[in-house]
Amino acid sequence: MRRRTIALGALFLATIISALIYIFVEGNSNEPYTIKNGMIHFAEPERAEGQTSMLGFAAEPIDTVRVGVIGLGQRGCGPLKRMSFIDGVKIVAICDLHQKNLDRGQKRLEKYGMPRADEYIGEEAWKELCKREDINLVYIVTDWPSHTPMAVYAMEQGKHVAIEVPAATSVAECWQLVDTSERTRRHCMMLENCIYDHFELTSLNMVQQGLIGEVIHVEGGYIHALDKFWSRFNDNWRLKFNQEHNGDVYATHGLGPICYVLNIHRGDRMTHLVSMDTDSWKGKELAKESLGTEEFANGDHTSTLIRTHKGKTIALQHNVYSPRPYSRQYQLTGTKGFINKYPTPGILLEHDSMKDSGVVPNHEDLSSHKFLPQEAFDALVEKYRHPIQKELLEKALKAGGHGGMDFIMDYRLIYCLRNGLPLDQDVYDAAEWSCIGELSAASIENNSMPVAFPDFTRGEWDKLKGHTFAK
Amino acid sequence: MRRRTIALGALFLATIISALIYIFVEGNSNEPYTIKNGMIHFAEPERAEGQTSMLGFAAEPIDTVRVGVIGLGQRGCGPLKRMSFIDGVKIVAICDLHQKNLDRGQKRLEKYGMPRADEYIGEEAWKELCKREDINLVYIVTDWPSHTPMAVYAMEQGKHVAIEVPAATSVAECWQLVDTSERTRRHCMMLENCIYDHFELTSLNMVQQGLIGEVIHVEGGYIHALDKFWSRFNDNWRLKFNQEHNGDVYATHGLGPICYVLNIHRGDRMTHLVSMDTDSWKGKELAKESLGTEEFANGDHTSTLIRTHKGKTIALQHNVYSPRPYSRQYQLTGTKGFINKYPTPGILLEHDSMKDSGVVPNHEDLSSHKFLPQEAFDALVEKYRHPIQKELLEKALKAGGHGGMDFIMDYRLIYCLRNGLPLDQDVYDAAEWSCIGELSAASIENNSMPVAFPDFTRGEWDKLKGHTFAK
Repeated sequence: MRRRTIALGALFLATIISALIYIFVEGNSNEPYTIKNGMIHFAEPERAEGQTSMLGFAAEPIDTVRVGVIGLGQRGCGPLKRMSFIDGVKIVAICDLHQKNLDRGQKRLEKYGMPRADEYIGEEAWKELCKREDINLVYIVTDWPSHTPMAVYAMEQGKHVAIEVPAATSVAECWQLVDTSERTRRHCMMLENCIYDHFELTSLNMVQQGLIGEVIHVEGGYIHALDKFWSRFNDNWRLKFNQEHNGDVYATHGLGPICYVLNIHRGDRMTHLVSMDTDSWKGKELAKESLGTEEFANGDHTSTLIRTHKGKTIALQHNVYSPRPYSRQYQLTGTKGFINKYPTPGILLEHDSMKDSGVVPNHEDLSSHKFLPQEAFDALVEKYRHPIQKELLEKALKAGGHGGMDFIMDYRLIYCLRNGLPLDQDVYDAAEWSCIGELSAASIENNSMPVAFPDFTRGEWDKLKGHTFAK
Repeated sequence: MRRRTIALGALFLATIISALIYIFVEGNSNEPYTIKNGMIHFAEPERAEGQTSMLGFAAEPIDTVRVGVIGLGQRGCGPLKRMSFIDGVKIVAICDLHQKNLDRGQKRLEKYGMPRADEYIGEEAWKELCKREDINLVYIVTDWPSHTPMAVYAMEQGKHVAIEVPAATSVAECWQLVDTSERTRRHCMMLENCIYDHFELTSLNMVQQGLIGEVIHVEGGYIHALDKFWSRFNDNWRLKFNQEHNGDVYATHGLGPICYVLNIHRGDRMTHLVSMDTDSWKGKELAKESLGTEEFANGDHTSTLIRTHKGKTIALQHNVYSPRPYSRQYQLTGTKGFINKYPTPGILLEHDSMKDSGVVPNHEDLSSHKFLPQEAFDALVEKYRHPIQKELLEKALKAGGHGGMDFIMDYRLIYCLRNGLPLDQDVYDAAEWSCIGELSAASIENNSMPVAFPDFTRGEWDKLKGHTFAK
């Protein structure tokens, strides 16, 4: 009996030792992730019964898109103006926490010749808006933490949704968007406007026509000193969010355009990232001034490196604090050329690509390690202007919104809905671009340990071949 | 008896399980590193008896510095010219594998009015050069893998050494340099010329005078399509080295200047890095053309993020393959301003810093989120020109070498040796900047796992306060 006790005791002890080593090495189970072999993994739940992929999804065409807009603050009045330049769309309802914002919205509608919209006011009023039978599209322009709950609810009421960036603030929310969209068969598009900026569209066209060869390394970012902007966000919600979250909390403007270039979930996929931030200096100053505390989680400068299945890399940066010139980086390194947007747009082509481009007569004079001279640059940009820009440029400049890109975004959304086409940005884009926030935070909290990307397409990232704008 | 066997068996089994988990998780013991809690650690051997720190080390003054130069290939003839513009230095001996290089060296000496040097030729001839009693300084300009063996041997013969970049190709070699220098009390300076470039010196001065506040994030790199250069390296050694090594194999030009800015081992230290590379596209093409194989270890583009003890970050890039404009990045993000060198130098100052700088009369007009206009930029650069530049600019432009920075480097080396002063770059700089090669490779080989920096100063990184040029 005694010996059996010793045997069991020894086994017990050894099991405890194994378990302790496992726990010690594999990380704390309170986190939404586990650590295996030095890599952080978030859950990748299996697809539930009754859900099917939204890849290439097209809904029934809608003759007149009837829109409910939630949130008329900092960004929310823009779409009211822009929609007035688009055929077949009607702003039916608007919702906000504050009457003054609703009033401003109505004035905007009036100014641009559109009928008054029904008003919804208060904390839970957005649910009433979502429930309306006569709305096809809920357009969400609220604070970040409410994006996913509102989008999920709206899809469950049978509405397509368009959500400001980031669409979600956690990996779990990303899955909620994907699963709800797959279950309800409703579009869930993030309103990432920067993919429609002129230089980005032109560059995408150059890449897709092979001008700079295989694109192997790309950069994106959001470098924007927000000093003058913080106070514009109702009750300081944006500063408070950053105060509570480290990581790259605003990655989509930088990431969206370069994911199109790399055909993410359209032939390639992001496999893992590492992230590193500085301590907080400017953030703490802001918190002290505006929030009466010196606690601030978000590092002043956050850098992230991402690798793809095909062996390409992405470098991302986030800094909304330091005095620096505005930049979304946008840099494409190809085997035959190089495209760079900030601070001054420049293109460099290898000799062969230059010859093939057919736009510079005296290409023999050009060094292959220098940016093209202005004349050649202008000729290339003209030649490779994206078909969408050609079609919409004039209207876009009139309708405005960040130089026209916001208009092109809304136009494309309405156009695709009206014609029953797949949207430019699908729910997997929304999830992939938004999940950076929590993935980068997890890496940072673990000394920059690599983090595996959840595959939101559940294995179908190679099914579509390249990004296209449906027409 | 049987029960005891079961007890022992159970314990044995559980121990094996623990050990297997440990080995599986902690990595392969064949590597020069171990993995603990998701972090790669290289050995940090204790200081051997008889060694003392070389921090702030000054040797006995040397009236005339008598130099032996090993390697007169791609870079090796430059110093012969430059030394002719410096007082109190004599090229006593030159060594190479090929007579044609020695002949070229002698011609160079003659052209610049210096006496012929003794010649050493052949694989082992450099040892004879090192043994000469009449030489104070061995100046090593050979292929990378021979740098450390030669430097160690030379120091053991009582000579100071100056070594082209990188000084070492592995962490073990970095320790050899540190230990040999500490044991022999001889200088071991890496010839990192880019710290002496005009814009870098001026910027360092701006930083040290507080113009851009606390510097929190810096970038450096080596982006240089070497197409036209590969064949200039004897027997293709450089391409072969890259073929066999992944990681950032040439980090010092990007890292040196920004380490001065951050006072690395002079108040702060690099604690860990993560590194990520692309697959090889251009490298494989090169290998196919020049080496008759498609095997190529070095990724086309390699990115590295480094964190410091004080919570600052460094972003490094290496790409010697893609068609891109030359760039060493050199970018400094401060709490009060921003300095950027490539593609066009630019400085941005917060309103307060602008006012304090006293060089722009109508500073009220300047946005704090835009680069300064050319006039203000020029005035700042003029005002903050580094004392070393003021002293040497004219001579430097005559003596040449990458626009004069190579001359300033040689001048400072000889000046400090003649005056018995600490050198600008010490052996810890050489080790810290050179170790990136193997540290980044280790990270890449482990899915970008973080790698701890060895502390080559052995705990004394906070002893010196800031970088200074001794005078």
